[in-house]
Amino acid sequence: MKVRVLVSFKESVLDPQGQAVKNALLTLGYDFIEDVRQGKIFELELKDMSREKIEEMIPEISHKVLSNPIIEKFEWEVID
Amino acid sequence: MKVRVLVSFKESVLDPQGQAVKNALLTLGYDFIEDVRQGKIFELELKDMSREKIEEMIPEISHKVLSNPIIEKFEWEVID
Repeated sequence: MKVRVLVSFKESVLDPQGQAVKNALLTLGYDFIEDVRQGKIFELELKDMSREKIEEMIPEISHKVLSNPIIEKFEWEVID
Repeated sequence: MKVRVLVSFKESVLDPQGQAVKNALLTLGYDFIEDVRQGKIFELELKDMSREKIEEMIPEISHKVLSNPIIEKFEWEVID
């Protein structure tokens, strides 16, 4: 099974990487860009396990290992 | 409008960051992890524009600016 975890800064946290990308795009003439936020994605390949176990474990490892919950938020989905 | 672009290494490219995360998770006892791949996510806030324009421009900036097409692939979706 495959799970995708998206980790991004909370709205209140400055995102200098996203700002740099935004400025690069505007400089290149892509003037339809209003804002850019950058984050991380983790694709986890899992051994066979129950849906309940996935719903217990993925938030746990996202919270404890994959993100910094003080400044980041995460969302996740089963993709395969 | 909001668009999300996911950029990750092609399958044939080694992903040392993903390997490091995998090893960390296994060390912590999460033995249901088979593999981890890490990538980047860009959330783009766009000015109002047509669906056709989005379908033209987002692959262009993903290819030219957000990813390195030699080693990375991307996918994108409108999320808002």
